Amino acid sequence: MKPKIDYNSDGGLCSSSTSVSGEDTPNRDERCQSPTDFDYTSGNKSLAEKIRLRIESGEKFFSLEFFPPRTKEGAVNLLARFERLRLACPLFCDVTWHPAGNPGGDTETSSMTIASAALNYCGLETMLHLTCCNLSREDVIKHLNRAREMGIRSILALRGDPPIGQDWHPPENGLKYAVDLVRLIRNLFGDDFSICVAGYPTGHPDATSYEADLLHLKEKVDAGADFIITQLFFRAETFIKFVRDCRALGINVPIIPGVMPIQSYDSLRQIAKLSKLEVPEEIINIVAPLKDNDEAIRNYGVQQAVSLIRELFNAGLAPGVHFYTLNREVATTTILKQLGLWVTEPRRPLPWRRAANAKRSTETVRPIFWSSRPKAYIYRTRHWDEFPNGRWGKSDSPAFGELKDYYLFYLKSKSSKNDLLRMWGEELCSEQDVWDVFHCYLSGQPNKCGVKITKIAWNDEELSSETSLLQEKLSEFNKKGVLTINSQPNVNGAPSDDPVVGWGPRGGYVYQKAYLEFFTCQANVQALLKVLPSFPRVNFHIINSNGSADYTNCHRHRPVAVTWGVFPGREVLQPTVVDPVSFKVWKDEAFALWREQWGKLYPEGSTSRDLLTRISETYYLVNLVDNDFPRESCLWDLLNAMFAQRELDNMSDFIQQDSDVHLDAVDHYENGLRLTRRQDSQGDGSYTHYTMEELVEAAHRQEMHDEIVTGEGHQ
Amino acid sequence: MKPKIDYNSDGGLCSSSTSVSGEDTPNRDERCQSPTDFDYTSGNKSLAEKIRLRIESGEKFFSLEFFPPRTKEGAVNLLARFERLRLACPLFCDVTWHPAGNPGGDTETSSMTIASAALNYCGLETMLHLTCCNLSREDVIKHLNRAREMGIRSILALRGDPPIGQDWHPPENGLKYAVDLVRLIRNLFGDDFSICVAGYPTGHPDATSYEADLLHLKEKVDAGADFIITQLFFRAETFIKFVRDCRALGINVPIIPGVMPIQSYDSLRQIAKLSKLEVPEEIINIVAPLKDNDEAIRNYGVQQAVSLIRELFNAGLAPGVHFYTLNREVATTTILKQLGLWVTEPRRPLPWRRAANAKRSTETVRPIFWSSRPKAYIYRTRHWDEFPNGRWGKSDSPAFGELKDYYLFYLKSKSSKNDLLRMWGEELCSEQDVWDVFHCYLSGQPNKCGVKITKIAWNDEELSSETSLLQEKLSEFNKKGVLTINSQPNVNGAPSDDPVVGWGPRGGYVYQKAYLEFFTCQANVQALLKVLPSFPRVNFHIINSNGSADYTNCHRHRPVAVTWGVFPGREVLQPTVVDPVSFKVWKDEAFALWREQWGKLYPEGSTSRDLLTRISETYYLVNLVDNDFPRESCLWDLLNAMFAQRELDNMSDFIQQDSDVHLDAVDHYENGLRLTRRQDSQGDGSYTHYTMEELVEAAHRQEMHDEIVTGEGHQ
Repeated sequence: MKPKIDYNSDGGLCSSSTSVSGEDTPNRDERCQSPTDFDYTSGNKSLAEKIRLRIESGEKFFSLEFFPPRTKEGAVNLLARFERLRLACPLFCDVTWHPAGNPGGDTETSSMTIASAALNYCGLETMLHLTCCNLSREDVIKHLNRAREMGIRSILALRGDPPIGQDWHPPENGLKYAVDLVRLIRNLFGDDFSICVAGYPTGHPDATSYEADLLHLKEKVDAGADFIITQLFFRAETFIKFVRDCRALGINVPIIPGVMPIQSYDSLRQIAKLSKLEVPEEIINIVAPLKDNDEAIRNYGVQQAVSLIRELFNAGLAPGVHFYTLNREVATTTILKQLGLWVTEPRRPLPWRRAANAKRSTETVRPIFWSSRPKAYIYRTRHWDEFPNGRWGKSDSPAFGELKDYYLFYLKSKSSKNDLLRMWGEELCSEQDVWDVFHCYLSGQPNKCGVKITKIAWNDEELSSETSLLQEKLSEFNKKGVLTINSQPNVNGAPSDDPVVGWGPRGGYVYQKAYLEFFTCQANVQALLKVLPSFPRVNFHIINSNGSADYTNCHRHRPVAVTWGVFPGREVLQPTVVDPVSFKVWKDEAFALWREQWGKLYPEGSTSRDLLTRISETYYLVNLVDNDFPRESCLWDLLNAMFAQRELDNMSDFIQQDSDVHLDAVDHYENGLRLTRRQDSQGDGSYTHYTMEELVEAAHRQEMHDEIVTGEGHQ
Repeated sequence: MKPKIDYNSDGGLCSSSTSVSGEDTPNRDERCQSPTDFDYTSGNKSLAEKIRLRIESGEKFFSLEFFPPRTKEGAVNLLARFERLRLACPLFCDVTWHPAGNPGGDTETSSMTIASAALNYCGLETMLHLTCCNLSREDVIKHLNRAREMGIRSILALRGDPPIGQDWHPPENGLKYAVDLVRLIRNLFGDDFSICVAGYPTGHPDATSYEADLLHLKEKVDAGADFIITQLFFRAETFIKFVRDCRALGINVPIIPGVMPIQSYDSLRQIAKLSKLEVPEEIINIVAPLKDNDEAIRNYGVQQAVSLIRELFNAGLAPGVHFYTLNREVATTTILKQLGLWVTEPRRPLPWRRAANAKRSTETVRPIFWSSRPKAYIYRTRHWDEFPNGRWGKSDSPAFGELKDYYLFYLKSKSSKNDLLRMWGEELCSEQDVWDVFHCYLSGQPNKCGVKITKIAWNDEELSSETSLLQEKLSEFNKKGVLTINSQPNVNGAPSDDPVVGWGPRGGYVYQKAYLEFFTCQANVQALLKVLPSFPRVNFHIINSNGSADYTNCHRHRPVAVTWGVFPGREVLQPTVVDPVSFKVWKDEAFALWREQWGKLYPEGSTSRDLLTRISETYYLVNLVDNDFPRESCLWDLLNAMFAQRELDNMSDFIQQDSDVHLDAVDHYENGLRLTRRQDSQGDGSYTHYTMEELVEAAHRQEMHDEIVTGEGHQ
């Protein structure tokens, strides 16, 4: 017998029969894919259910249609576009099936890959199109299985275009119509997929009549379709009539109008031709005279779409709107903003972005290490079937997947090799050159060629607003060879709606422990190890590339929460941890980026490449947590102490030569540093204290002494 | 494939080969059963392992032996003794096997029941004795299975005393010697049990010689015994020689000296006779002249035991000491205190006491409702095989066991019926009489018969020091019929070593949301429901006995953390939650206590009993959480508003009679209360605000008016 505590299942609504609504949070939380969707355990609703809830709430939604790009670069760009458009919280996006390519294959440009990347790596609820008329039944099933494996749970079921020619017949045992595909999905996959079908407000071009086409649509819905997206149309009344006719026929599922912002004269003509649609005269009359002025047409297209959608919304028959984006971004963004559908609210449910894959819907904890490389983390944990929820727990050996291929396209830098070289230096001659790259990235200063550095190998994005809080200190230490790749300031109970550090539901308080992660050279690490015992508040992990040196004062299997929040009516959330076991996995990835993302920009055998390889082999990766979050972070003091200790290490030889005094350690105090030297001559363990200045002076005297006595200066 | 994150298994030590010890916390955490044993996930170590770790740490331990009491009252008293002695953190206690009774049975006085209660309800690591010479092999196995079911994981394997007479033979197929029992346990139960055996420093009385007995001991250890406890002895050199002889023979397991504090002349003589031990002359010489002065003998016994144990410890051969307590408490306590083994450190690993049953070793979260009735909670969840850890999670229906028998002896009040009647009143005539009981309990004032009330039906203990922080406010409201049974103040980041609210490892910060739970009458609840919307910070649950009225503004399945802590090097701990589903289970228990624990003290049909039954049927159980923990709790304001609203409800009739003004609600502001009346005559939704004073004055005017006009005063 076990307690029936379900850590994973769907959240339920308040039983309204007996509850008084003292606050409306619980209900608001049930909304999906909206910026206030902070129900952390109910993210695995189907798309059909999400649409139903949005219709119930009366809040209009929008969705975005894309087609797979033709090139790998196009794929990288499209993913960047997904990330930007995601900020506006589309209810879903959909990716067309591209039968000419290898739509169900593994290439970077396949429909399947793009849809999976949108879902898994860009955090968009994603629907995949599937056309059946050229596929065998087996292939259809294979594609559906694969889509399900990827986490895709919505299919737009289409017939597709048969090859041109009168005598086309579907493959033996194949599917002739979309309705057959709908039936197959429902029969073989039950409710694993939400099924969408296409509606044709002016009738399908191949249908014998508008009425006959409506009956086909009814058939598709009766076979199990959950909702309808319409083919594009130009006049509101077309959609309004269509919906009324559908309803009259007993088609009761949601019908989402499909709208294409007119982007150019040529594309409009081409699409109208392909879709066998007649463009209304009033539009032709405006667009035709502008045909060589793309900007003017785009502006018109925006205005036309906005007024069309307004009319649809006002008619009360459209629960939302579907955009045929043609993979463009600007027009759709402008339209959304004009309609007030572009929600700019920057509230985050968690400090990191939640995944759209239902399998990860209960995930609430991640190691901090991947915070600038969330896609790598998602990739490496994609085969998990349970995700940490509430706590990370004891992780003896989290089964992280290998990350050998640093050129997985969704992990590829959005910048070209040339851009990266301009930022990071065509030639690197010294470690200082490398340090300066970090320094410029963090300070915002241009590099010596006047180029602004907007990314580093460990972070393909500009600095987060949170990092900016530490920018000055960070850039100062980076210039001196403390090469920071991750950090966060301490936060002691900021309101959860704080614009910089806030996250989670309103009315809560968020917290952070100060965190610093950096590469640095061995001499710094040796000094650091000497001063760390004077900072008992600090947890540390220090490791080199091959793991042969590995220092910590932490429990070997116990994570430390470094970000957490307390909210009304909830358990405590602690979304990021420093987990010692995961750190060793991350270490390999972090060291490899020196060679794979940066070093490989330079020819084999070049000074630059050798330098970066040497750094990756000799530097250490350090992480530091200051546990005493209510007090000012002591991590800067710790770094200062490290540098003071190095000075001391450099000096102690000289001083030792003409006295029996041995410099020993740097003690740390609340306010400043104290240097200690042991007076061995007294032999009673007593200490004499010197200020840093005294010691530096002593070292200089010693140098002069050496010069006089031996005739040799210390270079 | 799933992530290998083990939420339950044993913690590992830092790999010392590569770690530098910047803080010693991880190692200290590995210590067991000591007040700083705050390794929340490693509590399922075997007793053998705990002993090994304590020997490694060099920290002396002690253990306590008890025998089963003869009566039910004796059992209740013994459990109370366990609870007091537990505060000193014994490494374990052990309960003798009482073959004359029904030692493996279900009665309250059986060895099995007492051992299980010590383990499960008093939180003591517990070893059960088992003697085999009068049991069939099947019975031995049955008892071992039952012990394992109870969570007992240590057995002291003994032969036991055969019946007097020369011709005794063990039952057919039975076990003749302790070594046979050791073998049986190891063969059939593997490592499920730690096995202890008895050692006889002067040789077993039945053995042919001291040397022969040592060889038997060697046999027992070779058969799988983990450690040895010695028979009592009087001189340190006896033990020292014994240990050296054992080691010489290759007996290498820990040997714990058994010490019996001399408590009286008669018991000393009797025990010496039973154990066939010779009491040394130097002891006889002291004790014999004192034989009629028990106190003097006890004092001598303490002194003799202290110096004996000191000698043993100084000799470096005793890792700890085992006390034959004879179920007495004072002598052992005094000895422990004199030896410095009574650790008075009040640090708590969690706000509630952790269970000793290994099955519960990962448990870190409980609902707050049972905080004064932890034994009932343990009882009702005893069949769970997973316990909430880190978070409570979503609990659709936690499978709580029924709690029908309110007279389970370990849930029985330690006070007699007469004592309870003296405290709670021989006769209760009115609700105010009942309220006064709560008021006296909370204020510490004696009741009208001059008796101090030290417990109520919902809490068998005196007030916690934390409740004392709220004492004044609580007693004030209890006097007015807000009958509080649970509460905690808000705490915003107190140091974890705070003497009142602190818990968990040092160097952390602890937090609480203000919590209040009380019974109150329907009129109060009606007023409360009117004012609650003005306190949006507050989560509430309000329910009546049969659940027909059930109000909340919470998610129906989502718990609220009300106690949590943040510590160096760890995840966030949140040991108590308000869980809506568990509240309904608790509700039944809380309402039943009116009748079962209190009402049944009075004869059936008596006024007192009827009154308590009526209260249990008509009152509501309310819990309130103030989510805004950094600000001063608003719960007192809320209660004041509730009473103001009641005044208002009482007055509104009069005021309504000669005006169209309708008193409507009480609004709450940061500083004080504002009363609102809607001016319906204007019909524009505007409000006029009155102070409380104005309204009371208006009511009085109205009363005077009524008096004048109708000639009737309102009584």
